[in-house]
Amino acid sequence: MSVLSPDELEARLRAIGAERYHHHHPFHRLLHTGGCSRGQVQAWALNRWCYQAVIPQKDAALMARCDDVEVRRAWRSRLVDHDGETADDGGIARWLKLTDGLGLDRDMVVSQRQALPAMRFAALAYLDFVRSRPLVEAIGSSLTELFSPAIIGERVAGMLKHYDFVTPETLAYFAERPPRAARDSAFALAYVKRHATTPDAQRGVQDALRFKCDVLWAMLDALHAAYVAPGLVPPGAFVPADHPGAAT
Amino acid sequence: MSVLSPDELEARLRAIGAERYHHHHPFHRLLHTGGCSRGQVQAWALNRWCYQAVIPQKDAALMARCDDVEVRRAWRSRLVDHDGETADDGGIARWLKLTDGLGLDRDMVVSQRQALPAMRFAALAYLDFVRSRPLVEAIGSSLTELFSPAIIGERVAGMLKHYDFVTPETLAYFAERPPRAARDSAFALAYVKRHATTPDAQRGVQDALRFKCDVLWAMLDALHAAYVAPGLVPPGAFVPADHPGAAT
Repeated sequence: MSVLSPDELEARLRAIGAERYHHHHPFHRLLHTGGCSRGQVQAWALNRWCYQAVIPQKDAALMARCDDVEVRRAWRSRLVDHDGETADDGGIARWLKLTDGLGLDRDMVVSQRQALPAMRFAALAYLDFVRSRPLVEAIGSSLTELFSPAIIGERVAGMLKHYDFVTPETLAYFAERPPRAARDSAFALAYVKRHATTPDAQRGVQDALRFKCDVLWAMLDALHAAYVAPGLVPPGAFVPADHPGAAT
Repeated sequence: MSVLSPDELEARLRAIGAERYHHHHPFHRLLHTGGCSRGQVQAWALNRWCYQAVIPQKDAALMARCDDVEVRRAWRSRLVDHDGETADDGGIARWLKLTDGLGLDRDMVVSQRQALPAMRFAALAYLDFVRSRPLVEAIGSSLTELFSPAIIGERVAGMLKHYDFVTPETLAYFAERPPRAARDSAFALAYVKRHATTPDAQRGVQDALRFKCDVLWAMLDALHAAYVAPGLVPPGAFVPADHPGAAT
């Protein structure tokens, strides 16, 4: 196996996203095209919280392993974006505005008590990956953000159009994300192009992006299986009021 | 919340198993009653490998955290059972006889390359739990073995009756397990009854058993969603020859 040029590596990474990013998942199509019930949208927001909650932890874990002050300084903006400066600010707070707006009890959401175990396990796997893999792979695993601006645009437009229970305020999280995702993914992409300079490291970065696509895909698989088809909600997990078989 | 007597704690733990152990999962009923295709049985054995592979690691992680020589000595028999004395011996080797017998390539199985990401994440969550939670909870998470002898009896009888591609030799793993599971779970139950003597510790042990039931359930959910209904195999995962839409 020979070394790729930085641009060849970028092309490989973009091809992985084109093939495996979760915009291909049927749950996303359903969510964006108005095919979800209110209960299914609640289940998505409640469960995706498990992932949102872990993002600043994984960013802190990454910085904890990084001895380069410039990388840590750049990466710190991710903590600011998600944790905010006050309790009303930042991505974490904006995600809770989404779950509030969908009528979910905030303590229940934050506790993850009724989340699908598979969502918690996927989020934990991401945290574990960033804690344990080489730094260039940990940074590489963030590169799904190369592909998120397009999906977020579709999501916001589609959800506002199709769901009368969704407002621009409840979707405030997504309004903030595209420029930040573009900035962050440009930094991460430049980092891996500069630092993954051996065949092993280049394969590792590609595998890291595949792994992260697997995390996002597994979360939607779990949502789809529990709340769309076959609709098998695991013991103890959230049962939307409009779920077939929900107590009336 | 008041302290439970040891026998009350045992009754609570048995009630958790009666309610949440994976013998209630539709995939298990399908597997035991002849409802699976050969490809679905292959998918089960291939994916369950992710869990088998992590068991001796979690047992070693538990022993690594334990300063009681008697507990370590008793727990060591689990390592011997799974890792064996030679490459042909032990639970790991017997699981690979199962996947061999089902016609799966051994390197592919061991690599986990075509396993469902959700299976790897669930197995990792179990390992992380045992590494990070208090020792009495780590031991408590093993208590699903209280309930395994019954399910194994059903599984072996049902699979031999219904599947002509399954032989007693391919199921050798399960022949060994019931007496060992009974011995191991009796030890773990006695340990938690003796050491979980505060309301917090008793709640922790119950939550540990619920967590472990969630791990086992999530694995079957992932199998069911990928290979039964809706049959949505994630990118890169094993596609059985008899799966709808498999390349012919």
